[in-house]
Amino acid sequence: MTHVDIREVSLRDGLQIEKPIPLSAKLELLAAVAATGVREVEATAFVSPSKVPSMADAAELAAELHNYPDIDFSALVASPNGARRAIAAGLRSVEYVVAASDAFSNANVGRDSAQATGQIGDIVAIAHDGGATVEVIVATAWDCPFDGPTPPQRVLDIAAAACDQGVDRFCIADTIGTATPGRVKSLIAQLRPVIGDLPLGGHFHNTRGSGLASAYAAVDSGVTRLDASVGGLGGCPFAPGATGNIATEDLVYLLRDSDIDVDIDLTAAVAAARVAQSVVGHDLPSALLRAGDRIRS
Amino acid sequence: MTHVDIREVSLRDGLQIEKPIPLSAKLELLAAVAATGVREVEATAFVSPSKVPSMADAAELAAELHNYPDIDFSALVASPNGARRAIAAGLRSVEYVVAASDAFSNANVGRDSAQATGQIGDIVAIAHDGGATVEVIVATAWDCPFDGPTPPQRVLDIAAAACDQGVDRFCIADTIGTATPGRVKSLIAQLRPVIGDLPLGGHFHNTRGSGLASAYAAVDSGVTRLDASVGGLGGCPFAPGATGNIATEDLVYLLRDSDIDVDIDLTAAVAAARVAQSVVGHDLPSALLRAGDRIRS
Repeated sequence: MTHVDIREVSLRDGLQIEKPIPLSAKLELLAAVAATGVREVEATAFVSPSKVPSMADAAELAAELHNYPDIDFSALVASPNGARRAIAAGLRSVEYVVAASDAFSNANVGRDSAQATGQIGDIVAIAHDGGATVEVIVATAWDCPFDGPTPPQRVLDIAAAACDQGVDRFCIADTIGTATPGRVKSLIAQLRPVIGDLPLGGHFHNTRGSGLASAYAAVDSGVTRLDASVGGLGGCPFAPGATGNIATEDLVYLLRDSDIDVDIDLTAAVAAARVAQSVVGHDLPSALLRAGDRIRS
Repeated sequence: MTHVDIREVSLRDGLQIEKPIPLSAKLELLAAVAATGVREVEATAFVSPSKVPSMADAAELAAELHNYPDIDFSALVASPNGARRAIAAGLRSVEYVVAASDAFSNANVGRDSAQATGQIGDIVAIAHDGGATVEVIVATAWDCPFDGPTPPQRVLDIAAAACDQGVDRFCIADTIGTATPGRVKSLIAQLRPVIGDLPLGGHFHNTRGSGLASAYAAVDSGVTRLDASVGGLGGCPFAPGATGNIATEDLVYLLRDSDIDVDIDLTAAVAAARVAQSVVGHDLPSALLRAGDRIRS
Protein backbone atom coordinates (compact mmCIF):
# COMPACT_ATOMS: atom_id res chain seq x y z
CA MET A 1 0.00 0.00 0.00
CA THR A 2 1.33 3.43 -0.96
CA HIS A 3 2.04 5.78 1.95
CA VAL A 4 1.92 9.55 1.58
CA ASP A 5 3.42 11.94 4.13
CA ILE A 6 1.28 15.02 4.55
CA ARG A 7 2.94 18.19 5.79
CA GLU A 8 0.50 20.51 7.54
CA VAL A 9 1.13 24.07 6.36
CA SER A 10 -1.75 25.97 7.94
CA LEU A 11 0.47 27.67 10.51
CA ARG A 12 2.75 29.17 7.85
CA ASP A 13 1.31 29.16 4.34
CA GLY A 14 -2.18 29.14 5.81
CA LEU A 15 -1.75 32.14 8.07
CA GLN A 16 0.70 34.10 5.92
CA ILE A 17 -2.01 35.87 3.94
CA GLU A 18 -4.16 36.58 7.02
CA LYS A 19 -4.03 39.55 9.31
CA PRO A 20 -1.60 38.72 12.18
CA ILE A 21 -3.27 36.69 14.92
CA PRO A 22 -2.04 36.42 18.52
CA LEU A 23 0.53 33.78 19.41
CA SER A 24 -2.04 32.20 21.71
CA ALA A 25 -4.36 31.65 18.73
CA LYS A 26 -1.52 30.05 16.76
CA LEU A 27 -0.82 27.74 19.70
CA GLU A 28 -4.50 26.80 19.79
CA LEU A 29 -4.34 25.92 16.10
CA LEU A 30 -1.08 24.05 16.62
CA ALA A 31 -2.63 21.94 19.39
CA ALA A 32 -5.55 21.06 17.11
CA VAL A 33 -3.19 20.23 14.25
CA ALA A 34 -0.99 18.08 16.51
CA ALA A 35 -4.08 16.13 17.58
CA THR A 36 -4.54 14.92 13.98
CA GLY A 37 -1.45 12.71 14.31
CA VAL A 38 0.40 14.58 11.58
CA ARG A 39 4.17 13.95 11.57
CA GLU A 40 5.36 17.09 9.78
CA VAL A 41 4.28 20.68 10.36
CA GLU A 42 5.49 23.82 8.65
CA ALA A 43 5.45 26.01 11.73
CA THR A 44 6.45 29.50 10.63
CA ALA A 45 8.70 31.59 8.38
CA PHE A 46 11.87 33.48 9.26
CA VAL A 47 11.36 36.30 6.80
CA SER A 48 11.05 40.07 6.90
CA PRO A 49 8.45 41.06 9.51
CA SER A 50 7.64 44.16 7.51
CA LYS A 51 6.86 42.11 4.40
CA VAL A 52 5.05 39.31 6.23
CA PRO A 53 3.72 40.72 9.51
CA SER A 54 1.83 37.52 10.31
CA MET A 55 5.14 35.68 10.76
CA ALA A 56 6.79 38.31 12.98
CA ASP A 57 6.47 36.02 16.01
CA ALA A 58 8.52 33.21 14.44
CA ALA A 59 11.04 32.92 17.28
CA GLU A 60 8.36 33.04 19.98
CA LEU A 61 6.38 30.31 18.23
CA ALA A 62 9.53 28.24 17.73
CA ALA A 63 10.13 28.34 21.49
CA GLU A 64 6.88 26.41 22.01
CA LEU A 65 7.53 23.59 19.58
CA HIS A 66 9.36 21.39 22.12
CA ASN A 67 5.92 20.59 23.50
CA TYR A 68 5.36 18.33 20.47
CA PRO A 69 8.39 16.03 20.35
CA ASP A 70 6.76 13.61 17.87
CA ILE A 71 6.38 16.22 15.15
CA ASP A 72 9.09 17.31 12.72
CA PHE A 73 8.73 21.07 12.45
CA SER A 74 10.03 23.11 9.54
CA ALA A 75 10.32 26.82 8.84
CA LEU A 76 10.42 28.69 5.59
CA VAL A 77 13.33 31.01 4.90
CA ALA A 78 14.09 33.34 2.01
CA SER A 79 17.80 34.01 2.60
CA PRO A 80 20.93 32.75 4.39
CA ASN A 81 20.15 35.15 7.21
CA GLY A 82 16.68 33.64 7.60
CA ALA A 83 18.26 30.20 7.75
CA ARG A 84 20.58 31.37 10.55
CA ARG A 85 17.61 32.75 12.49
CA ALA A 86 15.67 29.52 12.04
CA ILE A 87 18.58 27.38 13.26
CA ALA A 88 19.19 29.71 16.22
CA ALA A 89 15.51 29.37 17.13
CA GLY A 90 15.91 25.61 17.29
CA LEU A 91 14.44 24.51 13.94
CA ARG A 92 16.02 21.43 12.42
CA SER A 93 14.28 21.58 9.07
CA VAL A 94 14.49 24.54 6.73
CA GLU A 95 12.52 25.21 3.55
CA TYR A 96 14.08 27.54 1.03
CA VAL A 97 11.77 28.85 -1.68
CA VAL A 98 13.12 29.58 -5.15
CA ALA A 99 10.63 30.90 -7.67
CA ALA A 100 11.10 29.51 -11.16
CA SER A 101 9.87 32.72 -12.76
CA ASP A 102 11.82 35.96 -12.53
CA ALA A 103 8.84 38.28 -12.11
CA PHE A 104 7.51 36.31 -9.15
CA SER A 105 10.97 35.94 -7.63
CA ASN A 106 11.55 39.68 -7.87
CA ALA A 107 8.14 40.46 -6.39
CA ASN A 108 8.62 37.90 -3.63
CA VAL A 109 12.25 38.37 -2.54
CA GLY A 110 13.69 41.17 -4.68
CA ARG A 111 16.03 38.81 -6.57
CA ASP A 112 15.60 37.03 -9.87
CA SER A 113 15.37 33.26 -10.09
CA ALA A 114 19.07 32.71 -10.88
CA GLN A 115 20.14 34.90 -7.95
CA ALA A 116 17.81 33.02 -5.61
CA THR A 117 19.13 29.71 -6.95
CA GLY A 118 22.66 30.94 -6.31
CA GLN A 119 21.99 31.11 -2.58
CA ILE A 120 21.05 27.45 -2.20
CA GLY A 121 24.63 26.45 -1.40
CA ASP A 122 25.00 29.01 1.40
CA ILE A 123 21.73 27.95 2.96
CA VAL A 124 22.64 24.26 2.79
CA ALA A 125 25.99 25.01 4.46
CA ILE A 126 24.36 27.00 7.26
CA ALA A 127 21.68 24.38 7.84
CA HIS A 128 23.96 21.36 7.72
CA ASP A 129 26.43 23.07 10.06
CA GLY A 130 23.53 23.57 12.45
CA GLY A 131 22.39 19.96 12.20
CA ALA A 132 19.36 20.86 10.08
CA THR A 133 18.09 19.60 6.73
CA VAL A 134 17.10 21.73 3.73
CA GLU A 135 14.21 21.39 1.33
CA VAL A 136 14.15 23.52 -1.80
CA ILE A 137 10.61 24.45 -2.83
CA VAL A 138 10.19 25.70 -6.38
CA ALA A 139 7.43 28.32 -6.45
CA THR A 140 5.51 29.08 -9.68
CA ALA A 141 6.65 25.66 -10.94
CA TRP A 142 3.86 25.58 -13.54
CA ASP A 143 2.67 29.17 -13.98
CA CYS A 144 3.59 32.64 -12.80
CA PRO A 145 0.91 35.28 -12.23
CA PHE A 146 3.10 37.80 -14.05
CA ASP A 147 5.24 35.83 -16.54
CA GLY A 148 2.61 33.24 -17.58
CA PRO A 149 3.48 29.57 -18.13
CA THR A 150 6.81 28.51 -16.63
CA PRO A 151 9.06 26.63 -19.08
CA PRO A 152 9.73 23.25 -17.40
CA GLN A 153 13.44 23.65 -18.09
CA ARG A 154 13.58 26.45 -15.52
CA VAL A 155 12.36 24.01 -12.85
CA LEU A 156 14.80 21.34 -14.01
CA ASP A 157 17.70 23.81 -13.80
CA ILE A 158 16.82 24.74 -10.22
CA ALA A 159 16.51 21.03 -9.41
CA ALA A 160 19.94 20.31 -10.85
CA ALA A 161 21.46 23.17 -8.86
CA ALA A 162 19.71 21.98 -5.69
CA CYS A 163 21.08 18.47 -6.15
CA ASP A 164 24.57 19.81 -6.79
CA GLN A 165 24.39 21.83 -3.59
CA GLY A 166 23.34 18.86 -1.48
CA VAL A 167 19.75 19.66 -0.54
CA ASP A 168 17.88 16.96 1.35
CA ARG A 169 14.43 17.25 -0.24
CA PHE A 170 12.80 18.92 -3.23
CA CYS A 171 9.26 20.21 -3.70
CA ILE A 172 7.32 21.68 -6.62
CA ALA A 173 4.69 24.27 -5.78
CA ASP A 174 1.66 25.35 -7.77
CA THR A 175 1.71 28.77 -6.18
CA ILE A 176 -1.33 30.20 -7.96
CA GLY A 177 -3.46 27.08 -8.34
CA THR A 178 -3.36 26.69 -12.11
CA ALA A 179 -1.74 23.27 -12.40
CA THR A 180 -3.75 20.32 -13.67
CA PRO A 181 -3.11 16.56 -13.66
CA GLY A 182 -1.70 16.43 -17.19
CA ARG A 183 0.94 19.07 -16.55
CA VAL A 184 1.70 17.70 -13.08
CA LYS A 185 2.49 14.27 -14.52
CA SER A 186 4.52 15.82 -17.32
CA LEU A 187 6.72 17.92 -15.03
CA ILE A 188 7.33 15.07 -12.59
CA ALA A 189 8.29 12.76 -15.44
CA GLN A 190 10.87 15.32 -16.58
CA LEU A 191 12.06 16.02 -13.06
CA ARG A 192 12.66 12.52 -11.80
CA PRO A 193 15.74 11.78 -13.94
CA VAL A 194 17.28 15.06 -12.71
CA ILE A 195 16.74 14.52 -8.98
CA GLY A 196 17.16 10.74 -8.87
CA ASP A 197 16.12 9.35 -5.48
CA LEU A 198 15.78 12.73 -3.75
CA PRO A 199 12.48 12.86 -1.83
CA LEU A 200 9.99 14.85 -3.92
CA GLY A 201 6.97 16.70 -2.59
CA GLY A 202 4.07 18.55 -4.16
CA HIS A 203 2.34 21.73 -2.99
CA PHE A 204 -1.01 22.54 -4.59
CA HIS A 205 -3.61 25.24 -4.30
CA ASN A 206 -7.26 24.73 -5.16
CA THR A 207 -7.85 28.12 -6.77
CA ARG A 208 -9.34 26.61 -9.92
CA GLY A 209 -10.76 23.50 -8.28
CA SER A 210 -7.97 21.30 -9.62
CA GLY A 211 -5.80 21.08 -6.50
CA LEU A 212 -6.88 17.64 -5.32
CA ALA A 213 -6.82 16.26 -8.85
CA SER A 214 -3.27 17.55 -9.24
CA ALA A 215 -2.26 16.13 -5.86
CA TYR A 216 -3.61 12.71 -6.79
CA ALA A 217 -1.83 12.90 -10.15
CA ALA A 218 1.40 13.66 -8.30
CA VAL A 219 0.94 10.58 -6.11
CA ASP A 220 0.15 8.58 -9.23
CA SER A 221 3.52 9.79 -10.55
CA GLY A 222 5.42 8.64 -7.48
CA VAL A 223 5.32 11.71 -5.24
CA THR A 224 5.09 10.61 -1.59
CA ARG A 225 5.01 14.00 0.14
CA LEU A 226 2.14 16.50 -0.09
CA ASP A 227 1.48 19.82 1.61
CA ALA A 228 -2.02 20.62 2.84
CA SER A 229 -3.70 23.03 5.21
CA VAL A 230 -6.61 22.33 7.54
CA GLY A 231 -9.75 24.06 6.30
CA GLY A 232 -7.96 24.95 3.07
CA LEU A 233 -6.58 27.97 4.91
CA GLY A 234 -4.12 30.03 2.98
CA GLY A 235 -2.85 31.67 -0.12
CA CYS A 236 0.04 33.88 -0.98
CA PRO A 237 0.10 37.65 -0.49
CA PHE A 238 2.40 38.15 -3.48
CA ALA A 239 0.38 36.08 -5.96
CA PRO A 240 -2.85 37.72 -7.17
CA GLY A 241 -5.78 35.33 -7.01
CA ALA A 242 -3.87 32.64 -5.13
CA THR A 243 -6.31 31.44 -2.52
CA GLY A 244 -6.73 28.15 -0.79
CA ASN A 245 -4.21 25.44 -0.12
CA ILE A 246 -5.75 22.04 -0.65
CA ALA A 247 -7.59 21.20 2.56
CA THR A 248 -5.94 18.54 4.73
CA GLU A 249 -9.24 16.85 5.52
CA ASP A 250 -10.33 16.75 1.86
CA LEU A 251 -6.93 15.30 0.88
CA VAL A 252 -7.01 12.71 3.67
CA TYR A 253 -10.53 11.66 2.66
CA LEU A 254 -9.54 11.31 -1.00
CA LEU A 255 -6.26 9.47 -0.43
CA ARG A 256 -7.51 7.04 2.18
CA ASP A 257 -10.67 6.29 0.19
CA SER A 258 -8.34 5.53 -2.73
CA ASP A 259 -6.44 3.01 -0.55
CA ILE A 260 -3.46 5.28 0.00
CA ASP A 261 -2.13 5.26 3.55
CA VAL A 262 -1.82 8.53 5.50
CA ASP A 263 -1.11 9.18 9.18
CA ILE A 264 -3.78 11.78 9.81
CA ASP A 265 -7.03 11.15 11.65
CA LEU A 266 -9.89 12.52 9.53
CA THR A 267 -12.21 13.47 12.38
CA ALA A 268 -9.40 15.33 14.15
CA ALA A 269 -8.51 17.10 10.89
CA VAL A 270 -12.09 18.32 10.51
CA ALA A 271 -11.99 19.51 14.13
CA ALA A 272 -8.72 21.34 13.42
CA ALA A 273 -10.32 22.94 10.37
CA ARG A 274 -13.04 24.31 12.65
CA VAL A 275 -10.35 25.73 14.94
CA ALA A 276 -8.64 27.29 11.92
CA GLN A 277 -11.92 28.88 10.88
CA SER A 278 -12.38 30.19 14.39
CA VAL A 279 -8.91 31.72 14.79
CA VAL A 280 -9.06 33.58 11.46
CA GLY A 281 -12.69 34.55 11.90
CA HIS A 282 -14.02 33.72 8.45
CA ASP A 283 -15.27 30.76 6.44
CA LEU A 284 -12.73 28.45 4.86
CA PRO A 285 -13.12 26.60 1.54
CA SER A 286 -12.82 23.01 2.84
CA ALA A 287 -15.42 20.68 1.31
CA LEU A 288 -15.55 18.25 4.23
CA LEU A 289 -16.17 21.09 6.64
CA ARG A 290 -19.43 21.71 4.76
CA ALA A 291 -20.34 18.14 3.84
CA GLY A 292 -19.64 16.80 7.31
CA ASP A 293 -17.11 14.13 8.16
CA ARG A 294 -19.31 11.32 6.87
CA ILE A 295 -16.78 8.63 6.23
CA ARG A 296 -17.15 5.48 4.21
CA SER A 297 -17.16 2.64 6.73
CA MET B 1 -5.34 13.67 -28.49
CA THR B 2 -8.09 12.32 -26.25
CA HIS B 3 -11.51 13.90 -26.77
CA VAL B 4 -14.11 14.06 -24.00
CA ASP B 5 -17.78 14.83 -24.65
CA ILE B 6 -19.25 16.94 -21.89
CA ARG B 7 -22.99 16.78 -21.31
CA GLU B 8 -24.34 19.96 -19.73
CA VAL B 9 -26.77 18.99 -16.95
CA SER B 10 -27.50 22.35 -15.33
CA LEU B 11 -31.03 22.52 -16.77
CA ARG B 12 -32.04 19.19 -15.23
CA ASP B 13 -29.74 17.95 -12.46
CA GLY B 14 -28.69 21.51 -11.77
CA LEU B 15 -32.18 22.95 -11.35
CA GLN B 16 -33.85 19.86 -9.89
CA ILE B 17 -32.98 20.73 -6.29
CA GLU B 18 -33.86 24.42 -6.70
CA LYS B 19 -37.18 26.07 -6.17
CA PRO B 20 -39.03 26.09 -9.53
CA ILE B 21 -37.96 28.97 -11.75
CA PRO B 22 -40.00 30.39 -14.65
CA LEU B 23 -39.67 28.83 -18.09
CA SER B 24 -38.31 32.15 -19.34
CA ALA B 25 -35.41 31.87 -16.87
CA LYS B 26 -34.69 28.32 -18.04
CA LEU B 27 -34.63 29.55 -21.63
CA GLU B 28 -32.20 32.29 -20.64
CA LEU B 29 -29.94 29.65 -19.06
CA LEU B 30 -30.35 27.41 -22.11
CA ALA B 31 -29.28 30.22 -24.44
CA ALA B 32 -26.17 30.83 -22.34
CA VAL B 33 -25.39 27.12 -22.24
CA ALA B 34 -25.87 26.79 -26.01
CA ALA B 35 -23.41 29.63 -26.53
CA THR B 36 -20.65 27.51 -24.97
CA GLY B 37 -20.62 25.23 -28.01
CA VAL B 38 -21.69 22.20 -26.00
CA ARG B 39 -23.04 19.33 -28.13
CA GLU B 40 -25.15 17.51 -25.52
CA VAL B 41 -27.57 19.00 -23.02
CA GLU B 42 -29.74 17.22 -20.46
CA ALA B 43 -32.76 19.47 -20.85
CA THR B 44 -35.34 18.27 -18.35
CA ALA B 45 -36.96 15.28 -16.65
CA PHE B 46 -40.29 13.65 -17.38
CA VAL B 47 -41.05 12.63 -13.81
CA SER B 48 -43.77 13.25 -11.25
CA PRO B 49 -44.44 17.03 -10.98
CA SER B 50 -45.46 16.55 -7.36
CA LYS B 51 -42.12 14.91 -6.49
CA VAL B 52 -39.99 17.25 -8.62
CA PRO B 53 -41.90 20.51 -9.05
CA SER B 54 -38.96 22.20 -10.77
CA MET B 55 -39.38 19.85 -13.76
CA ALA B 56 -43.17 20.30 -14.11
CA ASP B 57 -42.67 22.35 -17.29
CA ALA B 58 -40.85 19.53 -19.12
CA ALA B 59 -43.14 19.50 -22.16
CA GLU B 60 -43.17 23.31 -22.47
CA LEU B 61 -39.37 23.40 -22.33
CA ALA B 62 -39.12 20.55 -24.84
CA ALA B 63 -41.21 22.58 -27.28
CA GLU B 64 -38.43 25.21 -27.39
CA LEU B 65 -35.51 22.88 -28.09
CA HIS B 66 -35.92 23.00 -31.88
CA ASN B 67 -34.28 26.41 -31.69
CA TYR B 68 -30.94 24.66 -31.11
CA PRO B 69 -30.62 22.13 -33.93
CA ASP B 70 -26.90 21.51 -33.30
CA ILE B 71 -27.43 20.21 -29.76
CA ASP B 72 -28.45 16.68 -28.84
CA PHE B 73 -30.96 17.07 -26.03
CA SER B 74 -31.80 14.35 -23.54
CA ALA B 75 -34.38 13.98 -20.81
CA LEU B 76 -34.35 11.91 -17.67
CA VAL B 77 -37.17 9.47 -17.05
CA ALA B 78 -37.97 7.20 -14.13
CA SER B 79 -40.53 4.87 -15.73
CA PRO B 80 -41.91 3.61 -19.05
CA ASN B 81 -44.61 6.24 -18.82
CA GLY B 82 -41.99 8.96 -18.46
CA ALA B 83 -40.26 7.60 -21.54
CA ARG B 84 -43.54 7.81 -23.50
CA ARG B 85 -44.02 11.42 -22.40
CA ALA B 86 -40.45 12.31 -23.38
CA ILE B 87 -40.81 10.77 -26.85
CA ALA B 88 -44.20 12.45 -27.33
CA ALA B 89 -42.58 15.79 -26.45
CA GLY B 90 -40.04 15.27 -29.20
CA LEU B 91 -36.99 14.07 -27.26
CA ARG B 92 -34.76 11.63 -29.11
CA SER B 93 -32.49 10.74 -26.20
CA VAL B 94 -33.74 9.29 -22.94
CA GLU B 95 -31.83 8.73 -19.70
CA TYR B 96 -33.19 6.08 -17.36
CA VAL B 97 -31.82 6.13 -13.83
CA VAL B 98 -31.44 2.90 -11.90
CA ALA B 99 -30.08 3.21 -8.37
CA ALA B 100 -27.67 0.45 -7.41
CA SER B 101 -28.75 0.56 -3.77
CA ASP B 102 -32.21 -0.49 -2.66
CA ALA B 103 -32.68 2.22 -0.05
CA PHE B 104 -31.92 5.00 -2.50
CA SER B 105 -34.01 3.38 -5.22
CA ASN B 106 -36.98 3.10 -2.88
CA ALA B 107 -36.59 6.70 -1.70
CA ASN B 108 -36.18 7.92 -5.25
CA VAL B 109 -38.77 5.98 -7.26
CA GLY B 110 -40.59 3.72 -4.79
CA ARG B 111 -39.11 0.54 -6.27
CA ASP B 112 -36.05 -1.46 -5.28
CA SER B 113 -33.03 -1.75 -7.52
CA ALA B 114 -34.05 -5.07 -9.10
CA GLN B 115 -37.53 -3.76 -9.89
CA ALA B 116 -36.08 -0.64 -11.48
CA THR B 117 -33.62 -2.77 -13.45
CA GLY B 118 -36.53 -4.90 -14.63
CA GLN B 119 -38.04 -1.91 -16.46
CA ILE B 120 -35.02 -1.26 -18.66
CA GLY B 121 -36.37 -3.49 -21.43
CA ASP B 122 -39.73 -1.72 -21.59
CA ILE B 123 -38.07 1.67 -21.74
CA VAL B 124 -35.68 0.58 -24.47
CA ALA B 125 -38.61 -0.77 -26.49
CA ILE B 126 -40.59 2.45 -26.13
CA ALA B 127 -37.60 4.63 -26.98
CA HIS B 128 -36.40 2.60 -29.94
CA ASP B 129 -39.93 2.43 -31.33
CA GLY B 130 -39.99 6.22 -31.11
CA GLY B 131 -36.62 6.61 -32.83
CA ALA B 132 -34.85 7.55 -29.60
CA THR B 133 -31.79 6.20 -27.84
CA VAL B 134 -31.55 5.12 -24.19
CA GLU B 135 -28.79 5.68 -21.65
CA VAL B 136 -28.94 3.83 -18.35
CA ILE B 137 -27.45 5.88 -15.51
CA VAL B 138 -26.56 3.95 -12.37
CA ALA B 139 -27.16 6.17 -9.35
CA THR B 140 -25.32 5.54 -6.04
CA ALA B 141 -22.74 3.60 -8.06
CA TRP B 142 -20.15 3.96 -5.28
CA ASP B 143 -22.05 4.85 -2.11
CA CYS B 144 -25.63 5.22 -0.94
CA PRO B 145 -26.55 7.82 1.68
CA PHE B 146 -28.67 5.19 3.42
CA ASP B 147 -27.09 1.80 2.66
CA GLY B 148 -23.44 2.86 2.76
CA PRO B 149 -20.86 1.55 0.28
CA THR B 150 -22.35 -0.04 -2.85
CA PRO B 151 -20.93 -3.49 -3.64
CA PRO B 152 -19.49 -3.16 -7.18
CA GLN B 153 -21.26 -6.36 -8.19
CA ARG B 154 -24.60 -4.53 -7.96
CA VAL B 155 -23.40 -2.08 -10.61
CA LEU B 156 -22.04 -4.88 -12.77
CA ASP B 157 -25.38 -6.70 -12.58
CA ILE B 158 -27.29 -3.61 -13.72
CA ALA B 159 -24.74 -3.14 -16.51
CA ALA B 160 -25.21 -6.72 -17.69
CA ALA B 161 -28.99 -6.30 -17.68
CA ALA B 162 -28.69 -3.00 -19.56
CA CYS B 163 -26.51 -4.61 -22.23
CA ASP B 164 -28.90 -7.55 -22.54
CA GLN B 165 -31.79 -5.14 -23.06
CA GLY B 166 -30.02 -3.22 -25.80
CA VAL B 167 -29.32 0.17 -24.20
CA ASP B 168 -27.26 2.59 -26.25
CA ARG B 169 -25.09 4.14 -23.55
CA PHE B 170 -24.19 3.53 -19.92
CA CYS B 171 -23.23 5.97 -17.18
CA ILE B 172 -22.06 5.62 -13.57
CA ALA B 173 -23.10 8.34 -11.16
CA ASP B 174 -21.52 9.39 -7.88
CA THR B 175 -24.85 10.68 -6.61
CA ILE B 176 -23.64 11.89 -3.21
CA GLY B 177 -20.10 12.98 -4.06
CA THR B 178 -18.13 10.40 -2.11
CA ALA B 179 -16.23 8.71 -4.93
CA THR B 180 -12.47 9.13 -5.21
CA PRO B 181 -9.99 8.36 -7.98
CA GLY B 182 -8.96 4.97 -6.60
CA ARG B 183 -12.50 3.63 -6.45
CA VAL B 184 -13.42 5.23 -9.77
CA LYS B 185 -10.59 3.42 -11.52
CA SER B 186 -11.44 0.19 -9.75
CA LEU B 187 -15.12 0.22 -10.73
CA ILE B 188 -14.40 1.13 -14.35
CA ALA B 189 -11.84 -1.66 -14.61
CA GLN B 190 -14.48 -4.13 -13.41
CA LEU B 191 -17.19 -2.63 -15.60
CA ARG B 192 -15.43 -2.53 -18.95
CA PRO B 193 -15.40 -6.31 -19.55
CA VAL B 194 -19.14 -6.39 -18.82
CA ILE B 195 -20.18 -3.57 -21.16
CA GLY B 196 -17.62 -4.12 -23.91
CA ASP B 197 -17.62 -1.22 -26.38
CA LEU B 198 -20.76 0.44 -25.04
CA PRO B 199 -20.14 4.19 -24.60
CA LEU B 200 -19.47 4.84 -20.89
CA GLY B 201 -20.00 8.12 -19.10
CA GLY B 202 -19.26 9.42 -15.61
CA HIS B 203 -21.35 11.74 -13.44
CA PHE B 204 -19.60 13.25 -10.42
CA HIS B 205 -20.50 15.61 -7.63
CA ASN B 206 -17.96 17.73 -5.80
CA THR B 207 -19.47 17.39 -2.33
CA ARG B 208 -16.17 16.30 -0.77
CA GLY B 209 -13.91 18.21 -3.16
CA SER B 210 -13.01 15.04 -5.06
CA GLY B 211 -15.32 15.45 -8.07
CA LEU B 212 -12.76 16.76 -10.55
CA ALA B 213 -10.14 14.27 -9.37
CA SER B 214 -12.66 11.47 -9.90
CA ALA B 215 -13.62 12.82 -13.33
CA TYR B 216 -9.98 12.93 -14.41
CA ALA B 217 -9.46 9.42 -13.07
CA ALA B 218 -12.43 8.29 -15.15
CA VAL B 219 -10.91 9.81 -18.28
CA ASP B 220 -7.61 8.18 -17.37
CA SER B 221 -9.55 4.90 -17.32
CA GLY B 222 -11.00 5.41 -20.78
CA VAL B 223 -14.27 7.21 -20.06
CA THR B 224 -14.99 9.69 -22.85
CA ARG B 225 -18.28 11.17 -21.62
CA LEU B 226 -18.66 13.37 -18.53
CA ASP B 227 -21.60 15.25 -17.05
CA ALA B 228 -21.05 18.74 -15.69
CA SER B 229 -23.12 21.77 -14.75
CA VAL B 230 -22.26 25.43 -15.28
CA GLY B 231 -21.47 27.09 -11.98
CA GLY B 232 -21.54 23.70 -10.26
CA LEU B 233 -25.29 24.13 -10.01
CA GLY B 234 -27.14 21.19 -8.61
CA GLY B 235 -27.56 18.34 -6.24
CA CYS B 236 -30.23 15.77 -5.58
CA PRO B 237 -33.31 16.37 -3.44
CA PHE B 238 -33.44 12.72 -2.35
CA ALA B 239 -29.78 12.42 -1.30
CA PRO B 240 -28.89 14.18 1.97
CA GLY B 241 -25.75 16.29 1.65
CA ALA B 242 -25.53 15.88 -2.13
CA THR B 243 -24.62 19.32 -3.39
CA GLY B 244 -22.76 20.49 -6.42
CA ASN B 245 -22.26 18.83 -9.74
CA ILE B 246 -18.73 19.36 -10.95
CA ALA B 247 -18.67 22.78 -12.60
CA THR B 248 -18.47 22.75 -16.39
CA GLU B 249 -15.97 25.60 -16.48
CA ASP B 250 -13.70 23.99 -13.87
CA LEU B 251 -13.81 20.70 -15.78
CA VAL B 252 -13.11 22.38 -19.11
CA TYR B 253 -10.16 24.26 -17.60
CA LEU B 254 -8.72 21.08 -16.09
CA LEU B 255 -9.19 18.86 -19.13
CA ARG B 256 -7.94 21.31 -21.73
CA ASP B 257 -4.95 22.29 -19.61
CA SER B 258 -4.18 18.56 -19.41
CA ASP B 259 -4.21 18.36 -23.23
CA ILE B 260 -7.60 16.68 -23.44
CA ASP B 261 -9.84 18.03 -26.17
CA VAL B 262 -13.32 19.36 -25.34
CA ASP B 263 -15.83 21.30 -27.43
CA ILE B 264 -16.77 23.94 -24.88
CA ASP B 265 -15.57 27.54 -24.91
CA LEU B 266 -14.25 28.38 -21.44
CA THR B 267 -15.12 32.07 -21.47
CA ALA B 268 -18.68 31.29 -22.59
CA ALA B 269 -18.95 28.63 -19.87
CA VAL B 270 -17.96 31.15 -17.19
CA ALA B 271 -20.54 33.55 -18.62
CA ALA B 272 -23.17 30.79 -18.50
CA ALA B 273 -22.21 30.11 -14.88
CA ARG B 274 -22.96 33.77 -14.11
CA VAL B 275 -26.36 33.37 -15.77
CA ALA B 276 -26.98 30.22 -13.70
CA GLN B 277 -26.12 32.14 -10.54
CA SER B 278 -28.46 34.90 -11.57
CA VAL B 279 -31.46 32.69 -12.40
CA VAL B 280 -31.28 30.77 -9.11
CA GLY B 281 -30.44 33.86 -7.07
CA HIS B 282 -27.60 32.50 -4.94
CA ASP B 283 -23.86 31.87 -5.11
CA LEU B 284 -22.64 28.74 -6.85
CA PRO B 285 -19.57 26.69 -5.90
CA SER B 286 -17.63 27.02 -9.18
CA ALA B 287 -13.93 27.76 -8.63
CA LEU B 288 -13.38 29.59 -11.91
CA LEU B 289 -16.29 31.88 -11.20
CA ARG B 290 -14.34 33.13 -8.19
CA ALA B 291 -10.80 32.90 -9.57
CA GLY B 292 -11.72 34.55 -12.85
CA ASP B 293 -11.33 33.01 -16.26
CA ARG B 294 -7.58 33.57 -16.35
CA ILE B 295 -6.50 31.05 -18.89
CA ARG B 296 -3.03 29.74 -19.58
CA SER B 297 -2.06 31.19 -22.94
